Amino acid sequence: MIQRPRGTRDFTPKEMEARRHLEGAFRTVAETHGFREICTPIFEHAELFTLKSGPSIVEEMYAFEDKGGRQIALRPELTAPAMRFFVNDLTNYPRPLKLFYFGQCFRYERPQSGRFREFFQFGAELIGASAPESDAEVIGLAAALIAKSGLGEYQIRVGHIGVLRSMLRDAGVPQEKVSGILQKLDKKMYDEARPLMRDAGMTEEISEKAIKVTETTGPVDVLKDFPGEASSYLVEVFRILEAYGFTDVKVDLGVVRGLDYYTGVVFEVDAPKLGAEKQVCGGGSYSLTELFGGEKVFSTGFAIGFDRILLALEREGTIVQEHKVEAYVIPVSDKMRLEAHAITADLRRNGIAADVDLMRRNLGKNFKYADAIGARFAIIVGEKEMAEGSVALRDLVSGEQSLVKKDELVDKLRNKGESGVRGRCGGEN
Amino acid sequence: MIQRPRGTRDFTPKEMEARRHLEGAFRTVAETHGFREICTPIFEHAELFTLKSGPSIVEEMYAFEDKGGRQIALRPELTAPAMRFFVNDLTNYPRPLKLFYFGQCFRYERPQSGRFREFFQFGAELIGASAPESDAEVIGLAAALIAKSGLGEYQIRVGHIGVLRSMLRDAGVPQEKVSGILQKLDKKMYDEARPLMRDAGMTEEISEKAIKVTETTGPVDVLKDFPGEASSYLVEVFRILEAYGFTDVKVDLGVVRGLDYYTGVVFEVDAPKLGAEKQVCGGGSYSLTELFGGEKVFSTGFAIGFDRILLALEREGTIVQEHKVEAYVIPVSDKMRLEAHAITADLRRNGIAADVDLMRRNLGKNFKYADAIGARFAIIVGEKEMAEGSVALRDLVSGEQSLVKKDELVDKLRNKGESGVRGRCGGEN
Repeated sequence: MIQRPRGTRDFTPKEMEARRHLEGAFRTVAETHGFREICTPIFEHAELFTLKSGPSIVEEMYAFEDKGGRQIALRPELTAPAMRFFVNDLTNYPRPLKLFYFGQCFRYERPQSGRFREFFQFGAELIGASAPESDAEVIGLAAALIAKSGLGEYQIRVGHIGVLRSMLRDAGVPQEKVSGILQKLDKKMYDEARPLMRDAGMTEEISEKAIKVTETTGPVDVLKDFPGEASSYLVEVFRILEAYGFTDVKVDLGVVRGLDYYTGVVFEVDAPKLGAEKQVCGGGSYSLTELFGGEKVFSTGFAIGFDRILLALEREGTIVQEHKVEAYVIPVSDKMRLEAHAITADLRRNGIAADVDLMRRNLGKNFKYADAIGARFAIIVGEKEMAEGSVALRDLVSGEQSLVKKDELVDKLRNKGESGVRGRCGGEN
Repeated sequence: MIQRPRGTRDFTPKEMEARRHLEGAFRTVAETHGFREICTPIFEHAELFTLKSGPSIVEEMYAFEDKGGRQIALRPELTAPAMRFFVNDLTNYPRPLKLFYFGQCFRYERPQSGRFREFFQFGAELIGASAPESDAEVIGLAAALIAKSGLGEYQIRVGHIGVLRSMLRDAGVPQEKVSGILQKLDKKMYDEARPLMRDAGMTEEISEKAIKVTETTGPVDVLKDFPGEASSYLVEVFRILEAYGFTDVKVDLGVVRGLDYYTGVVFEVDAPKLGAEKQVCGGGSYSLTELFGGEKVFSTGFAIGFDRILLALEREGTIVQEHKVEAYVIPVSDKMRLEAHAITADLRRNGIAADVDLMRRNLGKNFKYADAIGARFAIIVGEKEMAEGSVALRDLVSGEQSLVKKDELVDKLRNKGESGVRGRCGGEN
């Protein structure tokens, strides 16, 4: 038997209903915030990702040579493709340009719990602005998305790499040593950070103060201990977030993200239910366009781990209602088959999810199938009843059965039951 | 400047709105017909596709060896993955099992008009049934999807490979020569088909009769000239399609599809506006599960070329309305910035797509941006007006401006304008 490739997944109808529901809810929220969707290819020139993340990323990518000898990679993330698209084709769009995207990403690593070789990201980029307003807009969108997902327990932590960077700069740390130190501090690997700071000429006092910065979390007031430009900027971001109504955001100066392209505000969202792999969203302000051959443009963006959000919802026991067929149409005899198809077509044209016997089964087997696919009602098409323009409508939950005029079937089904038809937009609007 | 890989596309916001609109409409139609969505990985073991389509398909695939030495391929189509998924995990689902899917597929060939290396397919499979009812159900879904797309000009052509196959069998053609002949007849390459038929022992009379079969098109009555089991079956399929209300379907015995896994009914949909690449949908009844290590199960399915439908709609001049931001909120002074953000958040929470000044622009530049992003209304937040709990609401189409109480803004915007907010479900339900 041929299996799916290791580390990949197939999604059943029930899983897809939950996934499309969340995707649709995210799309609606992003559009309501004035962001518009783009889509880029599944694969890119591998160079795009090595320029952004360094050559070591090749080890973690599905990279291959195509028949034309070009180095191609299945995309490991979506920010670089979005910015490549911007540099190629979108520089004349009005700014700020607010974009979002959703799709598969790929990484080549040992498959493990919550991490797959094929995974889904939902993300957004606000391009061409660099102000507390634009940073707050992006953090606000991330917060609105997470809230909309229905996740109960999560933490939004916002920092600013300027607080630490200015401290390092004032201490005379040479530019080429900054990233190494920040990366260790970001991971709270203090024992490895200390010798690096010492070698870079930082005194023990300054080093310990830097470590204290990365341990600083709490309400916006904690910033008072670290006055300066970055800190004032962050206070402004928090004031705007508050005006937007997001009061559950906290400061965490330990969010450092030691990559050179980050320029200021950085943030993360955790879902504690997920344990070690608890980060469900990460983002910040950055500048990448100049790496890809464009002019320098400041942006702020984030990516949400779509699969992790779903996993966290599952761990919290959040139930997404399963889609059901509304009506299953059963002809009682061969003579009634075409009538049954015509009735089915009429329901479908009126937006009512309907199914019909396709296997010429007997009544008993048809009821069994109707139950198995979760149909809400059965419509029994009998010769005697049809002669009078009627069919029998049976409620498969209560067992109640009544005669209904064929012409009144659509209205009857629209009004019956509390559920109605649950289309893919159900509950989103 | 780094470019996207050759033969791939990026989609702009405007393009994505049209694409998501069509995707959503297709999903609603499929669900209304009782089909449920699945999703399989972007790549598969290459063997899956060579088992189905023969080793020559490797030439046309993005196939590569992964770091574990496995032959992997970006999927060239979605029927094989769907049936692999069925064989792996879905054999216990009630039958008929009605599935649909949507996603990217890949082929390695010279990029040309209307053909891309990355393209999108929407398809469906009805698994575990083999009757005129199940075939008609699948053709009916294809017809309903194409109709829903808004395409004006198209032809649905239905054939049955049994008509020709029984003719070849009766003429004593050995099994191993059947596919070769059918493939030439399918492509109407009669000059190449004739010597093959002669070599297979067919008389000239029978050969010309076979060619005549492939030229037979028209209403269901044309089947009278070719009595037999296959022909009677097809008549039944057409009777059910008629009961479903699909009267624009015609017989075309020239639809042959010379692949061994097809078992009976075959069909195609053309959009003549597309010229040489006019086929937008192809399908039929088949049996593949036994190739993938499962028991033999009869199925009927099809794939729609999503990109070709969009191209055909474009050629027909079908306009999909562009999504617009409903309200753009402008603070007249720095003091009003937080108020502006609070008003924006309130609109968004109420499902109204709203944007706000993020660049601290002056009034003139803000109006210019509002116009550039296509905002329908501007909300001007001034100090004097806010002191009285009001804002100015300007209709950016008519230029009309009025004072509106802050608390009444949501209701006002919901009622204003004929468009209202156009969410992603607009027009689908």
